[in-house]
Amino acid sequence: MSKRPLILVINDDGITAPGIRTLVEVMNTIGDVVVVAPDSPQSGMGHAITINSTLFVEKVKLDQGPQVEYSCSGTPADCVKLAVKQILGRRPDLCVSGINHGSNSSINVIYSGTMSAAIEAGIEGIPAIGFSLLDYNWNADFSATKPYVKTIAENVLKEGLPNGVVLNVNLPNLPKKDIKGIKVCRQARANWEEEFDKRKNPQGRDYFWLTGKFVNLDKGEDTDEWALENGYVSVVPVQFDLTAHHCIQNLNTWNFHD
Amino acid sequence: MSKRPLILVINDDGITAPGIRTLVEVMNTIGDVVVVAPDSPQSGMGHAITINSTLFVEKVKLDQGPQVEYSCSGTPADCVKLAVKQILGRRPDLCVSGINHGSNSSINVIYSGTMSAAIEAGIEGIPAIGFSLLDYNWNADFSATKPYVKTIAENVLKEGLPNGVVLNVNLPNLPKKDIKGIKVCRQARANWEEEFDKRKNPQGRDYFWLTGKFVNLDKGEDTDEWALENGYVSVVPVQFDLTAHHCIQNLNTWNFHD
Repeated sequence: MSKRPLILVINDDGITAPGIRTLVEVMNTIGDVVVVAPDSPQSGMGHAITINSTLFVEKVKLDQGPQVEYSCSGTPADCVKLAVKQILGRRPDLCVSGINHGSNSSINVIYSGTMSAAIEAGIEGIPAIGFSLLDYNWNADFSATKPYVKTIAENVLKEGLPNGVVLNVNLPNLPKKDIKGIKVCRQARANWEEEFDKRKNPQGRDYFWLTGKFVNLDKGEDTDEWALENGYVSVVPVQFDLTAHHCIQNLNTWNFHD
Repeated sequence: MSKRPLILVINDDGITAPGIRTLVEVMNTIGDVVVVAPDSPQSGMGHAITINSTLFVEKVKLDQGPQVEYSCSGTPADCVKLAVKQILGRRPDLCVSGINHGSNSSINVIYSGTMSAAIEAGIEGIPAIGFSLLDYNWNADFSATKPYVKTIAENVLKEGLPNGVVLNVNLPNLPKKDIKGIKVCRQARANWEEEFDKRKNPQGRDYFWLTGKFVNLDKGEDTDEWALENGYVSVVPVQFDLTAHHCIQNLNTWNFHD
């Protein structure tokens, strides 16, 4: 048995995306890497799982690195389940997801396939991190992210994470010299103000395209949005016990009659 | 202007499912109802949104009730966005999602399309409730759920909900005489132990079906699982600020070097 940690690498942009190729390159310097990633982009899939359909898995070789790789027809959450139960045969020491092409800060965590893979790993008891770069382009420049990705992964391997907690890491789209460091943050309160672009198809039927703009409603200087706007890498500890414990006492005063 | 509340009804099993028909029937006794629901089942979609595809919306009439109904080609979260921004033109006073055919208790909240609609409404600032019955069958008997659905919805209309909080309501699959009442709970710690059923397709290629069993890891008597097993309707307040605030202090002691 190797003493190097076993690291599972996942993403939601698809196994050939430059972001996951960068993540594989960095993880190869830390441990033994197995990639199980979707065969096509899955962005905006949220925490979808494939219940009523079949899953295909294919061993693939995409470059000359030492990692072992599998391409999967499912969602990011499916990839975690398949990797742990079918491919690895044991829990990896770390699961890293990404590097996503585009932000998963603030409320975007809710819609994120990248974070759904990390959360799925967390549910399985695996220390897990989702990484995202604030650049939606396929040809985004991931070079400045590497030292930050490496030190955060090494810290998680060394320190572990509490049960029920995974990390949501977002990296500003800046050259290395302009990144000021790493900040531990809370999720900013924000939403998307959607607009729907209404059009007619060639048969004259109305249809809609979803468009919208991100609105940060949170002026706090301890948020991920503040950190990213000010040149820092943001690290938010994320939990999947969604209970709003502070409301339970008040709800118990309600008058439920049937 | 009517003084009756404007109630948006959504689900993830599709607009013709018996669960949403029951919910519409109950809401018609409380307010003015607009239904915007998927034209086909969306279960297991998590918090997916339709980014790279078109959305179609069709006004439909499914029964003799006074409600106005629209069938939509998107996910439950898409339905909320379309309803608020395109169809209603204003925020409804209440958004109810369901009644789902099958449990969304405990960790299932993470995978739930029913709850993603409620959470999306919560993000938009609308008081919102997701309802689920612990019976996966299409022909499940929803009659015992009606008084509980009604009293919980009326309480939310009267009392409101704190910012950033929606309700996850699960109903036991029992006749009315055996339901003991309503309990406000926390989300039980649980997971799914997956197994993958490996098969070969007619071309000889391996594929997998996801199967698995739900495992409750939580012995607490204040959880939704305990309430449901003991004949109560469970009400869990759910938040979408996922920050694990209790971890921030510890993470700030880590040694990040780049």
